Amino acid sequence: MYPDSIKNLVESFKFLPGIGEKTAERLAFSVLNLEEEQAEFFSDSINNVKHKIHKCRKCNVLTESELCFICADDTRNNDVLCVVEDTKNVYLFEKLGMFHGKYHVLEGLISPLEGINPEDIGLDKLIDRINKEKYKEIIFAFKPSIEGETTALYIKKILEGMDVVITRLASGVPIGADMEYVDSLTLERALNDRKEIE
Amino acid sequence: MYPDSIKNLVESFKFLPGIGEKTAERLAFSVLNLEEEQAEFFSDSINNVKHKIHKCRKCNVLTESELCFICADDTRNNDVLCVVEDTKNVYLFEKLGMFHGKYHVLEGLISPLEGINPEDIGLDKLIDRINKEKYKEIIFAFKPSIEGETTALYIKKILEGMDVVITRLASGVPIGADMEYVDSLTLERALNDRKEIE
Repeated sequence: MYPDSIKNLVESFKFLPGIGEKTAERLAFSVLNLEEEQAEFFSDSINNVKHKIHKCRKCNVLTESELCFICADDTRNNDVLCVVEDTKNVYLFEKLGMFHGKYHVLEGLISPLEGINPEDIGLDKLIDRINKEKYKEIIFAFKPSIEGETTALYIKKILEGMDVVITRLASGVPIGADMEYVDSLTLERALNDRKEIE
Repeated sequence: MYPDSIKNLVESFKFLPGIGEKTAERLAFSVLNLEEEQAEFFSDSINNVKHKIHKCRKCNVLTESELCFICADDTRNNDVLCVVEDTKNVYLFEKLGMFHGKYHVLEGLISPLEGINPEDIGLDKLIDRINKEKYKEIIFAFKPSIEGETTALYIKKILEGMDVVITRLASGVPIGADMEYVDSLTLERALNDRKEIE
C-alpha cells in the first residue's frame, strides 16, 4: 500500500530494538517532513557511525581514532581501572564526572545460560593490560546480576596473588525507591552490606 | 564526549518528533549493532524517501509515480470522494478495506488560531477536481475538532448549489470506551446524533 521507499524506511526503523510497526510508520512519515539537509545529515550519520567507529586499541571504548578520549588523556589517574560490560557505561560514569581513572570495556558478561563463556568476552586483552600497567585498584562496575557476579569472581580468581585491590560497586536500595517495590535479592544485599552511621 | 559520528547520529534521531536525548542515544547505539547491510539500507531509505516521494498530481496522496495507487486504479468507485487532512489517513481507511471510492488529501485544516487560512490548505485543487469529476457524495473525514468543523463548513459553503451530497464521519462514544472517560463534547455529539434501534 505504501510507496516502496516509505515501506523500506518503515522496515529500517523496525531494525532498531523497541520499535514496532506503528512507531516505525510514525517515524518514517516524520522523516518525510524533515528539511532536505536534515535528512541528508541523518543518512550520512548512519553511514559514518558504521564506517568510522571502532574500538580503542587499548580499552575497547568506541572511538574514531586509534586511542579513545580516555586513553589519550594524560591527566587521568593511572592507578585505578574501572571494568565495564559495555561502552555506554563509560559515558554514564563520565557524565557523573566523579571517576578520574581508566576504563576497560569487556565484550559482555559470562553467561553459561546464554552460552557466553569466559573466552568470549575478551578477557585476554584485560588480563594482558592489567599485567602490563600497574594498577592499585580494579573496580568491577557490572550490573548486579548472576552474570555480573560470575564475571567478577572469574576475573578475581585469575588475578589472585597480584598486588591489587579488587572492588565492586555497592549494591542496595536505590535512593528514592519505595521499600515495598525493592526486590528481595536487593534487600538481602542491602542488609548484608549495611553501613554504620557515623 | 561521544565520538563525532555518534554525536551526529544522536542529533539526527532528535530531529524526529517524540524522540528526546535518552531515546536518541539508545537508538544511535543500536545502529552501531546493525549489520553492515541493514545500516546501508536504512541510510539509503532515508535518502530515497526524500528524493522519490512526492504528491499525486490529482489527489496529493504520497507516491513515487505521477498518479498514486488509488488514482491509478480503474476499479475504484468514481462516485464518492473522501476528503482527508493528511496522507496517513488514506492508509488508515485503506487498511479497513471498507471504502472503495477516491480520496483527496488537503494540506491541513483551517485554523485561524495557528494562522492557517483557507488559501493555505490547497482548497483550489480540491474545488477544481470536484467541478471536473462528477461526484455524487463528498465525505469529510477530518478529525473531530474545531479545525475539522471549520474546514468542513467552509468547503460546504463553496459547494453550495452543486448537486452533491456532503457527509461527515459519525462522531460519538468510541466502541469499548468507559463512559466515565468520554469527554463532554463527545457525549453531547453522541446524544445529538443518537440513532433509533431497529
